[in-house]
Amino acid sequence: MRQTFHETTRPEQGPANLKTVRAVLAQRGLDGFIVPHEDEHQNEYLPEANDRLAWLSGFTGSAGAAIVMADRAAMFTDGRYTQQVRDQVDGASFEFLDLVEGGVPGFVRDLPAGTRLGYDPRLHSPDALGAIAREAKAASVELVACEANPVDEAWGDQRPPQPAAPVVPHEIRFAGESSASKRERLGESLAARGIDAALLTAPASVAWLFNVRGGDVIRTPLPLAQAILNSDGSARLFLDPAKISDALPGWLGNEVSLERPEALEGALGDLKGRRLLIDPAQSSAWYFERAEALGVHIERGPDPCALPRATKNETEIEGARRAHIRDGVALATFLHWVGTEAQETLPDERVVVERLEQLREATGALKDLSFDTIAGAGPNGALPHYRPVERTIRRVEKGSLLLVDGGGQYLDGTTDVTRTMAIGEPSAEQKDRFTRVLKGHIAMSVVRFPAGTTGHQLDVLARLPMWMAGLDYDHGTGHGVGSYLGVHEGPQRIAKAVNTQPLLPGMIVSNEPGYYRPGHWGIRIENLQVVTEARAIEGGERPMLGFETLTFAPIDRRLIEVSLLSDAERAYMDRYHAEVLAKIGPHLDGEVLAWLEVQCAPL
Amino acid sequence: MRQTFHETTRPEQGPANLKTVRAVLAQRGLDGFIVPHEDEHQNEYLPEANDRLAWLSGFTGSAGAAIVMADRAAMFTDGRYTQQVRDQVDGASFEFLDLVEGGVPGFVRDLPAGTRLGYDPRLHSPDALGAIAREAKAASVELVACEANPVDEAWGDQRPPQPAAPVVPHEIRFAGESSASKRERLGESLAARGIDAALLTAPASVAWLFNVRGGDVIRTPLPLAQAILNSDGSARLFLDPAKISDALPGWLGNEVSLERPEALEGALGDLKGRRLLIDPAQSSAWYFERAEALGVHIERGPDPCALPRATKNETEIEGARRAHIRDGVALATFLHWVGTEAQETLPDERVVVERLEQLREATGALKDLSFDTIAGAGPNGALPHYRPVERTIRRVEKGSLLLVDGGGQYLDGTTDVTRTMAIGEPSAEQKDRFTRVLKGHIAMSVVRFPAGTTGHQLDVLARLPMWMAGLDYDHGTGHGVGSYLGVHEGPQRIAKAVNTQPLLPGMIVSNEPGYYRPGHWGIRIENLQVVTEARAIEGGERPMLGFETLTFAPIDRRLIEVSLLSDAERAYMDRYHAEVLAKIGPHLDGEVLAWLEVQCAPL
Repeated sequence: MRQTFHETTRPEQGPANLKTVRAVLAQRGLDGFIVPHEDEHQNEYLPEANDRLAWLSGFTGSAGAAIVMADRAAMFTDGRYTQQVRDQVDGASFEFLDLVEGGVPGFVRDLPAGTRLGYDPRLHSPDALGAIAREAKAASVELVACEANPVDEAWGDQRPPQPAAPVVPHEIRFAGESSASKRERLGESLAARGIDAALLTAPASVAWLFNVRGGDVIRTPLPLAQAILNSDGSARLFLDPAKISDALPGWLGNEVSLERPEALEGALGDLKGRRLLIDPAQSSAWYFERAEALGVHIERGPDPCALPRATKNETEIEGARRAHIRDGVALATFLHWVGTEAQETLPDERVVVERLEQLREATGALKDLSFDTIAGAGPNGALPHYRPVERTIRRVEKGSLLLVDGGGQYLDGTTDVTRTMAIGEPSAEQKDRFTRVLKGHIAMSVVRFPAGTTGHQLDVLARLPMWMAGLDYDHGTGHGVGSYLGVHEGPQRIAKAVNTQPLLPGMIVSNEPGYYRPGHWGIRIENLQVVTEARAIEGGERPMLGFETLTFAPIDRRLIEVSLLSDAERAYMDRYHAEVLAKIGPHLDGEVLAWLEVQCAPL
Repeated sequence: MRQTFHETTRPEQGPANLKTVRAVLAQRGLDGFIVPHEDEHQNEYLPEANDRLAWLSGFTGSAGAAIVMADRAAMFTDGRYTQQVRDQVDGASFEFLDLVEGGVPGFVRDLPAGTRLGYDPRLHSPDALGAIAREAKAASVELVACEANPVDEAWGDQRPPQPAAPVVPHEIRFAGESSASKRERLGESLAARGIDAALLTAPASVAWLFNVRGGDVIRTPLPLAQAILNSDGSARLFLDPAKISDALPGWLGNEVSLERPEALEGALGDLKGRRLLIDPAQSSAWYFERAEALGVHIERGPDPCALPRATKNETEIEGARRAHIRDGVALATFLHWVGTEAQETLPDERVVVERLEQLREATGALKDLSFDTIAGAGPNGALPHYRPVERTIRRVEKGSLLLVDGGGQYLDGTTDVTRTMAIGEPSAEQKDRFTRVLKGHIAMSVVRFPAGTTGHQLDVLARLPMWMAGLDYDHGTGHGVGSYLGVHEGPQRIAKAVNTQPLLPGMIVSNEPGYYRPGHWGIRIENLQVVTEARAIEGGERPMLGFETLTFAPIDRRLIEVSLLSDAERAYMDRYHAEVLAKIGPHLDGEVLAWLEVQCAPL
């Protein structure tokens, strides 16, 4: 099994590790130190060696920070992790503070004047650091850049080694465009802006630009590496030699020089007097400081790979369609099991997770899960960011709901799908809530919209059926998804918060409204969908973009209160289920196919 | 008649006035000068004496700018005025450029190094000037602040005098809160922020804070004046003595000192070493420069009156309800005339405008129109910002549509309503489009939403029925409206563009989706509605804000294609029309009442 159910940290490690970190701080004459969740690569999922926050505190959420002072310590987390941080972190050693309201800058503002507060410039983007620096200045707090991280020193021999998974070619039949072509067009666009080179520090950008994949981070095939792309299309790729697979040098070709990570600083020096693009939201302050010190003219702007990576080409979209049908066959077989055998055996969440993983594995094409599967039985389903661990695993129960959110990493695409199933006979309330979530999901699926529309403009469509009933859900409606890359990928996003990136053809987004009844059960319905080209609408005047659904899996018809659907919504559901049957059915037979036919019949 | 139909400018004045301005620039050693539409008060509607752009070029739109150079001149307007600027401005004398794309900063960027470009610091906000200054610096253009405006010098004796309408009390029975109370609570809030005083330069803020109204600007009862509010609640009001009505000093009381406008600079000097709040989006750069030179500590932030003014109190909301019923009686009588007599006489737009004005006047309570009535017959209705003038006036025609958008200024409230009526038998296309606009309008009327929701989040609800048919409209969906103040009032707005101000209880907004078929006809349906308190929804969990409709006037049922309405939309229309009859009917009798009863019957 790829997924495990044990907890990797314990609250007890907080007091112990705080002590050793404080000893290092005292030696160095520092009054405190900031420990962000982010690592040197601004990854969402971290290699264990870089998860300093988890080692220090026990907290394993995907966003957060800590500040260690001599006589106190604070943990900062957002609304998603209010409960988790209390479960994982020792409350006697850490205060719990809000990452968003006040956050680290607010804490710094209230420090005594003259405090010497350390930070690791490799771990903070200039944008994040700027907010802290402004408050530090106002409070007369001295920020001290630490070339060697005090947490790493305290961690010492116990710290795991850096990952060194081989970096391998990602074939053109999956990528759809050669690295030479990508480098040439991005280089031309840099040249047109009078820029000599771009520094790439996001592993996903390195993977996309060079058509390579790695294995340094769990659940995402990322190579931890950096690169410099020159405006003539040539590039320098900085990669631990241990990661260089046999096929790699030939795959990269003559225009890409493979160099050791230590060579990056010298390479920045080679750009003295030249204009270098660096993304202040992506690359850490260390790069800016180094480049500036070496006489490079820094041009601040978005990572030039971000938008081309987000807008999938036809090969990638075709690959996503294939991956979703393959994943859909596994999912249909799983849903059949939930709808039949599991209704009697009432398995626990571990069994549910393992069953789905086995079925994905059985496709023979699974490279990894795209994230740890969420199987939330009853009250656990009401926690939107739940992951089952030994301490929390529940059995499914009659009269409750089972929420399963998971996905696979395949060479041709990344999947992410959520289905919620009734166990036993659903209640009227469960059907009402489920149907409202479904109405929002349908609205976000069928919408047509003009060029220039952003995700925050569409978000309300998924929420409206909830709002009209006095309900809402406290997470975004949709995130971008990579192509055999991160399951969470920007810059597009569908959420309440402002996002200035228009939705462009080829962008893949999730569509996942939900409803959570704390202490009882949760509902989420999630498909991935790809933005389609602007197309004329009959009788209309302006071509409109839209979405093509990628995910095909039946939606539990026992939970649909048909009387709440409009005629158009009901017709949508019948069309969708007919398409599920047409695409997935041919890969099934026997009892599972018969079951799917029933599930996909008109409502 | 309050509204006139002649054009106040001619294209010929452009070449003539450019010449005299250029002579002044040459004398002063300037290579060019920026002429924004905005005046010293950042008004939307300008007194004639401050409409420098209209005098210089002939352009009378509500936004724009010009730059006069020795050998060329440019006019900058936005998408709304593409046609109007070509009609009003001499194309041989001015280039026509886009105000938004590139705009004035873009023009400055392309000027030769060493250019001396003048500007009047009283006419530019620091925000607007900052964008120009950045480009000027990059292009080595020298920006020269002109204490005396070269346009005013060129205008000379021909320039009309500054308006001096009396400033009169606005009674508590309309304002709902005394000026003393407003000053006290705003002063306390300044004190809590450690701020000593706030500079108020927006006439609407002066009017609201002191409960006074003036008549210096057409269509809006604004007094051109400035004020300083101290954190102890006392204030200094800088007002031309000619405007002081007999009742004013007693009304203002002892805590408000009435001073001449020339005393403002000295008053800034009195704040040396103190913290003064100035709004960089509202107050011109001149105030910042003067305050800084006089040793004042400037605190940048929103005008403290803006939000309290926008969130109407119960007295203002009750006044708005009354004003809308009064206005609705005039409107129903007008719509009866359009629906009966005008169907035979086929009047021209002037007759339509005058008829509506006479009926509003007949209420006996009309203080002014809230803006020049738009009566757009046929193709003129397809111009969203049309105003009929002699050159353009058309008669209504059978088979076409008549769009009428107008409103009144009453002591108890400001109205703004648009209705579109069929002349003769409407076509299937007209009914289809009208019904889609209506569906959007209904969606924006019935929506419930959680606290914190902004206008840009809701905007899509009004557009969705258009988008799904491949249609859209190129204007916002809703603007804020004042209480016997500006018919366009921020900070809230419902539009595609990001607006970070959440909708708060008491805010009045318009709801006015439309559809425009260029060269043929236009459709817009507009009601005003007020944001209601968060209220529980039966069976729901979270209290939700919503809207209460203020405008009551029948919607042309001949244009509604009932088969396109959902059951809920049809029920809404029947409820709305029943309410129109219940509120407006008791004030009518005879033929008009009988007509209204038919119009308001269930669909």
